[in-house]
Amino acid sequence: MPVKAVVWGENVHEHQSSIVAATYPDGMHTCIADALNSDPRISATTATLQEPEHGLTEARLADTDVLLWWGHAAHGEVSDTVVERVCDAVWSGMGMIFLHSAHFSKPFKRLMGSPCNLTWREAGERERLWVTSRNHPITQGLPDSFELDMEEMYGEPFGVPEPLETVFISWFQGGEVFRSGLTYKRGAGSIFYFRPGHETYATYHDSHVRTVLKNSVRWAFNPMARIADPNAAPNVPAADAPEKIEDRGPKLHADGDDGFR
Amino acid sequence: MPVKAVVWGENVHEHQSSIVAATYPDGMHTCIADALNSDPRISATTATLQEPEHGLTEARLADTDVLLWWGHAAHGEVSDTVVERVCDAVWSGMGMIFLHSAHFSKPFKRLMGSPCNLTWREAGERERLWVTSRNHPITQGLPDSFELDMEEMYGEPFGVPEPLETVFISWFQGGEVFRSGLTYKRGAGSIFYFRPGHETYATYHDSHVRTVLKNSVRWAFNPMARIADPNAAPNVPAADAPEKIEDRGPKLHADGDDGFR
Amino acid sequence: MPVKAVVWGENVHEHQSSIVAATYPDGMHTCIADALNSDPRISATTATLQEPEHGLTEARLADTDVLLWWGHAAHGEVSDTVVERVCDAVWSGMGMIFLHSAHFSKPFKRLMGSPCNLTWREAGERERLWVTSRNHPITQGLPDSFELDMEEMYGEPFGVPEPLETVFISWFQGGEVFRSGLTYKRGAGSIFYFRPGHETYATYHDSHVRTVLKNSVRWAFNPMARIADPNAAPNVPAADAPEKIEDRGPKLHADGDDGFR
Amino acid sequence: MPVKAVVWGENVHEHQSSIVAATYPDGMHTCIADALNSDPRISATTATLQEPEHGLTEARLADTDVLLWWGHAAHGEVSDTVVERVCDAVWSGMGMIFLHSAHFSKPFKRLMGSPCNLTWREAGERERLWVTSRNHPITQGLPDSFELDMEEMYGEPFGVPEPLETVFISWFQGGEVFRSGLTYKRGAGSIFYFRPGHETYATYHDSHVRTVLKNSVRWAFNPMARIADPNAAPNVPAADAPEKIEDRGPKLHADGDDGFR
Repeated sequence: MPVKAVVWGENVHEHQSSIVAATYPDGMHTCIADALNSDPRISATTATLQEPEHGLTEARLADTDVLLWWGHAAHGEVSDTVVERVCDAVWSGMGMIFLHSAHFSKPFKRLMGSPCNLTWREAGERERLWVTSRNHPITQGLPDSFELDMEEMYGEPFGVPEPLETVFISWFQGGEVFRSGLTYKRGAGSIFYFRPGHETYATYHDSHVRTVLKNSVRWAFNPMARIADPNAAPNVPAADAPEKIEDRGPKLHADGDDGFR
Repeated sequence: MPVKAVVWGENVHEHQSSIVAATYPDGMHTCIADALNSDPRISATTATLQEPEHGLTEARLADTDVLLWWGHAAHGEVSDTVVERVCDAVWSGMGMIFLHSAHFSKPFKRLMGSPCNLTWREAGERERLWVTSRNHPITQGLPDSFELDMEEMYGEPFGVPEPLETVFISWFQGGEVFRSGLTYKRGAGSIFYFRPGHETYATYHDSHVRTVLKNSVRWAFNPMARIADPNAAPNVPAADAPEKIEDRGPKLHADGDDGFR
Repeated sequence: MPVKAVVWGENVHEHQSSIVAATYPDGMHTCIADALNSDPRISATTATLQEPEHGLTEARLADTDVLLWWGHAAHGEVSDTVVERVCDAVWSGMGMIFLHSAHFSKPFKRLMGSPCNLTWREAGERERLWVTSRNHPITQGLPDSFELDMEEMYGEPFGVPEPLETVFISWFQGGEVFRSGLTYKRGAGSIFYFRPGHETYATYHDSHVRTVLKNSVRWAFNPMARIADPNAAPNVPAADAPEKIEDRGPKLHADGDDGFR
Repeated sequence: MPVKAVVWGENVHEHQSSIVAATYPDGMHTCIADALNSDPRISATTATLQEPEHGLTEARLADTDVLLWWGHAAHGEVSDTVVERVCDAVWSGMGMIFLHSAHFSKPFKRLMGSPCNLTWREAGERERLWVTSRNHPITQGLPDSFELDMEEMYGEPFGVPEPLETVFISWFQGGEVFRSGLTYKRGAGSIFYFRPGHETYATYHDSHVRTVLKNSVRWAFNPMARIADPNAAPNVPAADAPEKIEDRGPKLHADGDDGFR
């Protein structure tokens, strides 16, 4: 059975900028979903900001193996309820890929617990991504480096926690570097941040970028059953302790009480 | 100059439970601050939930090197504004120590980006903490393990990200284990989670626990100047790029624009 | 095509101790290989210390996806040539699982770069392994904890580097804890250390242990082609630099020279 | 009391290359030691390959807080006995800084457990180091980036384990990137790898580089007493277990036996 991916697109620039509309006539999210669907092991659909609940209902997320997120101009319009729902889905085992300007999206900031800031420049400069973790599943089929002729620059320091693994580092023509591929785990969910993808360039038509997208979806997929309540903090009464113990000492809680939150 | 520590206490149980009041007649926060002040290299004061802005004004945080946090019954009463302020302070370089039930406090959950859940039991059982990172600064002066005769049990799986280092792991009489000392970095701030400290027991009177508290404050202290705006994401115009580049390609932003957030 | 696993067994105690011989009449390595072969996605064979080149020729390792290693009494008899060969295979992409007393084996110490020491006790005590990384692939099909009625104790501090992920932590009846499941990456190879497996007990007949073994082999398998020379450090002449540069400055090497080693 | 640093220099190129001799008339090790001695909190001396035991006797290492290592042409001439002695010292708590071509030195390869390979080019190109871990102690007093006008290029993939923290990443004029500042812990010892320092350039005269050297020595210093035997693996007899247990089950070892190695 193929991995069920949902590509979430903010879908704003496509309707405001003729450049973006020309490069991505069906929307960036559709271009990304098409890339994923070229792999028979993936089945990708899309969701956008403008749909009810941004297209991410409880039921939809429960049926999503891996969620990809592209946003830029409208981070603030994303409902906090949906953000919490997405985080819960990740913690319960859904994979998640954050693309480019999603570094400042609400769910990324929420999952990282850090500022997620960087320096930037929109000058159509050359970017070269270097693989730093050889034979990482996300790099399958890639050479040691690949180039994008025109990209926005993102520069260090990048305000994220130290990752599980650094998979790509970018070189920019203007003199900066950036950790462009980073893996994280939050709860049962695997997370990948991938830097390229400025909306005025044809990045998501690039074959190496499309390879990374496909690899990362398959990498982020967790075949195990989702955790029913990823926030549960169950009490284990003394009578149920794995080892026999005497219940003693002063107490705040009665047996079976819920804990404070 | 001594490290300026602030011990934040929820200060609720002390007024509702005669047991807690008897064990910590001046409040848990005062007991913890007294422990810190026994080290001449530390100067500790306290702040509580009930004070205006919970005692954590912008000015107070700007003058705090390391913040310690104990909360349990009233996590939900902590103002979101103060939580964001505390996170900003951490990202700008303030050290932070989370104690025991602060695993479910708003700032800890915000900084971890994960559920922070666990299993628990209040049965006055024996806990033994083992050092897992030999000669880590936080372990200075400790034996390879030490015991607390009565403690609440916290059990794995603990819903936190993989730490920078695992410093302590606890053994519980009832059969569970727990990663009791974990280090993280978020932005420029160092974070330590330390498990023991249930309010109905005399944990913060224990000499080994007090050693850990003092060590961790000195470990978390960053002597460098705080980052002025830890969330800044500055544009670097093409003319200011470290390497000379030609500004080219389609654009969304005019030179000097702020980025989207 | 199934994952090709090789179970390397020291094969000494089986011939010196009637207890071990009775528990593992065909050798521990055969019992472990049988466990793996119960999964149709794995095809496991064995190799032992006594075979020429310990059964681990260049050709055999080149055809091995994942190597498992159990050794105890005869660590010193393992040829350094074979150890270097095994490390090269790991660096080129072979997965590797170290079992129990293999913590002191030559290849584990070589790959960790640390003392790999611990405390220990052979008293037939109860061990309980707790999952610390929920829904990690290695835990598939396991409950949150499982017990082994009789095991040797290994205690912290365990002299290994901080892992990529801590997957299991053990509780011991005698009061110790131990990080019993740890993942690492060295070069292109994934490594898993799994603690249980003392030779005088029936550990490798336990169904939960067998589940971990099967899961870990599938987790450690890297389907990408092995790196031809994992130690190569190629010179990139100025004429071949990705960006055009002028070759200048004082020099030690002529173009195309090998570097020093 | 100042931190006692020893700068180990291979001291070969200085006598074979007039360029190196002119840039470092008293040897590279002396130039580095002078940089360290400009900080009153550090007291640095030197040792070289040519001295008996390479200047690193047991007694010398026991009295060394932090060892810095520069080698290139003569890695193979370093005695394996001294390498093991250096690793033992690190594991017992000595800090260690590896400089530039020491990526292929015996102690670095031994402590990393990985190939430590990279790509390289000697073309006098520009290198720019970017800070990736804001306010890390090793970056104190540095701007967000600094340049070296002429350096050897080292390129990714760099065959080292994922570090505790990535502190610097380099941009090279020729199009490559490199993780130029990496921290590790092995046993009780902190390790820092710092990339710049090709012998034909004046790198160790650069003020930013000298700042990094001084910072890293102070960062790597562990004030705690060294571990007496960092490889000890003590038996804990059943009678000495922290919790009372019955000694039972089949046995390989008699009480008080040493374990196998």
